[in-house]
Amino acid sequence: MRKHSDQTSCADIKEKIIGATTELIGTSHGDPDRVSIRAIAHHAGVSIGLINYHFTSKEKLIEVCVERIIKQVIHSFKFDREIQDDPKDRLFSGTVSVFTFLKENPEIAKISIVSDLSSPHRNANSVTSYQAILSTLPDGFSGERKKVAAFMLLSTIQSAFLIRSVADDLLDFDLYTDEGVRSFFKHVIDLLFTPESTHD
Amino acid sequence: MRKHSDQTSCADIKEKIIGATTELIGTSHGDPDRVSIRAIAHHAGVSIGLINYHFTSKEKLIEVCVERIIKQVIHSFKFDREIQDDPKDRLFSGTVSVFTFLKENPEIAKISIVSDLSSPHRNANSVTSYQAILSTLPDGFSGERKKVAAFMLLSTIQSAFLIRSVADDLLDFDLYTDEGVRSFFKHVIDLLFTPESTHD
Repeated sequence: MRKHSDQTSCADIKEKIIGATTELIGTSHGDPDRVSIRAIAHHAGVSIGLINYHFTSKEKLIEVCVERIIKQVIHSFKFDREIQDDPKDRLFSGTVSVFTFLKENPEIAKISIVSDLSSPHRNANSVTSYQAILSTLPDGFSGERKKVAAFMLLSTIQSAFLIRSVADDLLDFDLYTDEGVRSFFKHVIDLLFTPESTHD
Repeated sequence: MRKHSDQTSCADIKEKIIGATTELIGTSHGDPDRVSIRAIAHHAGVSIGLINYHFTSKEKLIEVCVERIIKQVIHSFKFDREIQDDPKDRLFSGTVSVFTFLKENPEIAKISIVSDLSSPHRNANSVTSYQAILSTLPDGFSGERKKVAAFMLLSTIQSAFLIRSVADDLLDFDLYTDEGVRSFFKHVIDLLFTPESTHD
């Protein structure tokens, strides 16, 4: 092994493993249980021993990947801020894209949300999501109202995702279809964006 | 009628055990882990064997009691409908009393909410709570909007309760004080009760 490039190649290998794992989670419908360490090693072109060396356990590796994946969602929220002028449209499309992301990565999303709700802490993924929503809300909202609205939107996205199997029955929205998701969140955003707040 | 009186006393004993357990959960800050089967037997004046005979396990008994306790909350929601005319006031005081109840029974509430979110089903406690909120909402809301608003309110109550330890930091509301709870839910109800919907 070339000694001078050891540090670089160490970071490279970690990235390669994270990238391979994230890809495999994606093709496994977001279910980390269906991704074996053997498959990760094969996909990343490294040995199982090297994965254990860098991440100590599969659980630890999955945790790192979940954080990466969640950061991608948050990035999509920020992206919307740049390309859409109307704050309501921006919030709507950001919300729909986050919900769609959760649906496409159901197991990862469930692990992340339930764990954040059960053991809340300041660095939780949910806190980052909350802050991303907060930054997307229009300035028209007063400070306190803005925080409450962001929290209500995040709570609704998370709960609706978790209980989507009974949403058709309870809410009359089929959250398994794009049409149902758009229609549901159209109402959610409409309720939060009162004439009062948009006219501020 | 020997058989008849056997059945009656059987139901009586079950009720006595449920009542004793519910009381003990209440005096243990809503934490079923702190209630021993020995204490239940003593408080109900029955043997441990009889408890196991009727409920098979402490977990099963706790489950029955949690449902009872949650039904009390739902009753308080309905009660508010009778004594308060203004729908916004009714919703506000109902919401505050539910949140206060959750805070006073934190372990039971956490078990119930996290379990409903993780494994949603039609007979979940959360579904009953959702329907109670729905029946409290004013008729001014259109059908779809009403369901979405009820769901948003329930999601917000549940999430706010679960993440209350970081609420001060994230939301600037101290959800451990009555003042903080009232102030937070004042904003929540204000956001849901838009001029648009109340003027319908």
